[in-house]
Amino acid sequence: MQDIIKGIIQKNNSKIMMVVLDGLGGLPVHGKSELEVADTPNLDMLARNSACGLHIPVSPGITPGSGPGHLALFGYNPIEWQIGRGVLEALGLGIDLKKTDVAIRCNYATIEKGIIKDRRAERIPTDKSKKITERLQEKIRKIDDVDVIFAPGMEHRFAVVLRFPKPLEKGSADIKDTDPQKEGNPPVAVTPGTTQAEKVAEVVEKLIKAVSAVIRDQKKANFILLRGFSQVPHIPHFADIYGLNPLAVAAYPMYRGLAKLIGMDAPAITGDVQEEIKFLKQNYKKYDFFFLHVKKVDSYGEDGNFKGKAEQIERFDRDLAQILALDPDVLIITGDHSTPSLLKGHSWHPVPVLLKSPYVFGGLCKSFSERECTKGELGIFPTINLMPLALANALRLKKFGA
Amino acid sequence: MQDIIKGIIQKNNSKIMMVVLDGLGGLPVHGKSELEVADTPNLDMLARNSACGLHIPVSPGITPGSGPGHLALFGYNPIEWQIGRGVLEALGLGIDLKKTDVAIRCNYATIEKGIIKDRRAERIPTDKSKKITERLQEKIRKIDDVDVIFAPGMEHRFAVVLRFPKPLEKGSADIKDTDPQKEGNPPVAVTPGTTQAEKVAEVVEKLIKAVSAVIRDQKKANFILLRGFSQVPHIPHFADIYGLNPLAVAAYPMYRGLAKLIGMDAPAITGDVQEEIKFLKQNYKKYDFFFLHVKKVDSYGEDGNFKGKAEQIERFDRDLAQILALDPDVLIITGDHSTPSLLKGHSWHPVPVLLKSPYVFGGLCKSFSERECTKGELGIFPTINLMPLALANALRLKKFGA
Repeated sequence: MQDIIKGIIQKNNSKIMMVVLDGLGGLPVHGKSELEVADTPNLDMLARNSACGLHIPVSPGITPGSGPGHLALFGYNPIEWQIGRGVLEALGLGIDLKKTDVAIRCNYATIEKGIIKDRRAERIPTDKSKKITERLQEKIRKIDDVDVIFAPGMEHRFAVVLRFPKPLEKGSADIKDTDPQKEGNPPVAVTPGTTQAEKVAEVVEKLIKAVSAVIRDQKKANFILLRGFSQVPHIPHFADIYGLNPLAVAAYPMYRGLAKLIGMDAPAITGDVQEEIKFLKQNYKKYDFFFLHVKKVDSYGEDGNFKGKAEQIERFDRDLAQILALDPDVLIITGDHSTPSLLKGHSWHPVPVLLKSPYVFGGLCKSFSERECTKGELGIFPTINLMPLALANALRLKKFGA
Repeated sequence: MQDIIKGIIQKNNSKIMMVVLDGLGGLPVHGKSELEVADTPNLDMLARNSACGLHIPVSPGITPGSGPGHLALFGYNPIEWQIGRGVLEALGLGIDLKKTDVAIRCNYATIEKGIIKDRRAERIPTDKSKKITERLQEKIRKIDDVDVIFAPGMEHRFAVVLRFPKPLEKGSADIKDTDPQKEGNPPVAVTPGTTQAEKVAEVVEKLIKAVSAVIRDQKKANFILLRGFSQVPHIPHFADIYGLNPLAVAAYPMYRGLAKLIGMDAPAITGDVQEEIKFLKQNYKKYDFFFLHVKKVDSYGEDGNFKGKAEQIERFDRDLAQILALDPDVLIITGDHSTPSLLKGHSWHPVPVLLKSPYVFGGLCKSFSERECTKGELGIFPTINLMPLALANALRLKKFGA
């Protein structure tokens, strides 16, 4: 579909705003979902005057990770474009990845006589883990002609990026996880799955040895396990497909990282939604597509905190006036997936969406909720259809065929 | 999609029950459909608290046979996996088919001077038919190096399996039906459609001659007509894709046969729905997926008996308590296709479905009917999405992507 879209794009001065309340969809607890319980007069009014519906990020029944969820929102088929674990981890820790890179998700582990005693080094505290990672970065900057970038993470987790001097071929990161998955086993040998990966595997082996030399005398966290070897996908850029100049406004690194993967501008910002909106206002003139990411809705859902999630939705409802004041031509409010507090995690449930533009019907939904959105004019549809709908409503798509 | 499902399956102790009321969907007569007329307090209550919708087995406007309808329910693309009639018939009559086999659906017919007088030999009684078939099996065990297996069926129907000494090439069963479809015509000559089928066609010709030699002196049932020449497809097993241990509970042979084709346990049982439910209860501990087939709803639809079909639905409604008492984690009640009494046959209309689990909204449909299901949270969707939804609601699917 992106090929067809690319062929009928026309530019104009319209602005499209896509607000992603991470993990927006929920499930009823005592009869009502988080969205149904939350007092959201502004969202409800918007829903009454918008095209509403529910979208399915990957396929019915499939629970999307954040990567697939966002790619689908941006119009990329999340089954075709699968982002590796290492890449997501590195992006989340704020590393800008290049085509020369292999990204790896790493764990500190405890080893004794060649046997993994604890795959997570007793979940060492983040501050201690960070110190070790910083020491490793000091001692290890290069292996042969490959730059090594360490990025501290939470508890026993961190990321490593191997930056080669030249862009890597496809398949170069096809290396087996070294994590044996069960304690009491030796680590899995570094095993390349393709000939292209052999060179990378050599560097990885040297890396493990170099790291061991630095940390092997520690009682715990004296070894590392490596997983999710991956490269950035050769994914077409958002601007090239849609003719839009996009800005990502996201306080959480992983979402900026995902946006950067498809060529969005995603300057580092910190703070809460207020800060994000402030940044959005400052940059509103310079761009014509805005991805505004609101993380906290998902976080409370993941914690199983029904009331907290509802409150975050209410908080956003109060912030909405500022976004409406910018008066974008097309305003979409939705999520990247559902995160029902009941399930304490992402879920497969279709995600409510509202699309405000001068070219919709409205009048079908009384409020903004999962159940009301089933009555909306957009129906239940694959998430990748949302970008074409946004472009159409911005009058940025020419007729297909004569 | 089955590839992706297979990659994210996780096992747990949940139980999934799929009840298939064959030919469930109907059409209005005097303003109301069979489901709308039927008094179904239990189904209606269930619908109010379940995820409801309508599913399309093959594609909009396409009327599915029983094979495609059921394959789609089990998550197999019915366009990709087309099962021959002979195979279905033979499996249903309890023959375990191999890659060396060609299965054929047969009829006893009455022939006079080379002209078919009755294509069904006046629907001779099952016991008489069985005796003839047993006699044929006694007399004919081999044709050349090919084993011949006869399986008695209902009334004039039976099946023959030709078991060749070696696995057959694809296309080996591409032989025209010998049934002329209309009385007053001679039987159609055995005609192979491919070079691979020529050898099989030779054996079939010899078979017809051998059978004639045995039965030609009977007044009726003195000839056989052969249809649906087919080989077993190399279809992946249900258990291998979904990690479920499935039991088919079906009194009608063809549905057991279909289930066996995808590796389900499908022990022979007889009797009505009561007997099926008894069998289900006895085996409930040993399995984690249950396909319960209720045939009669379809039978009355096929007969154009509106009232009879509605009564069969009401009868099932009364039986429902016993199924609910088993308390499966996920309960699906639906059909394999619609069979409106108005059309006296299968139809293309989307099939109503309800899915009960702790992770649904409900509250959108007042009762269980075609029209009410259009308001449900599942929308109108391809039938092959039902299995992923069942697995998701049983919490048997991990997240896709990070």
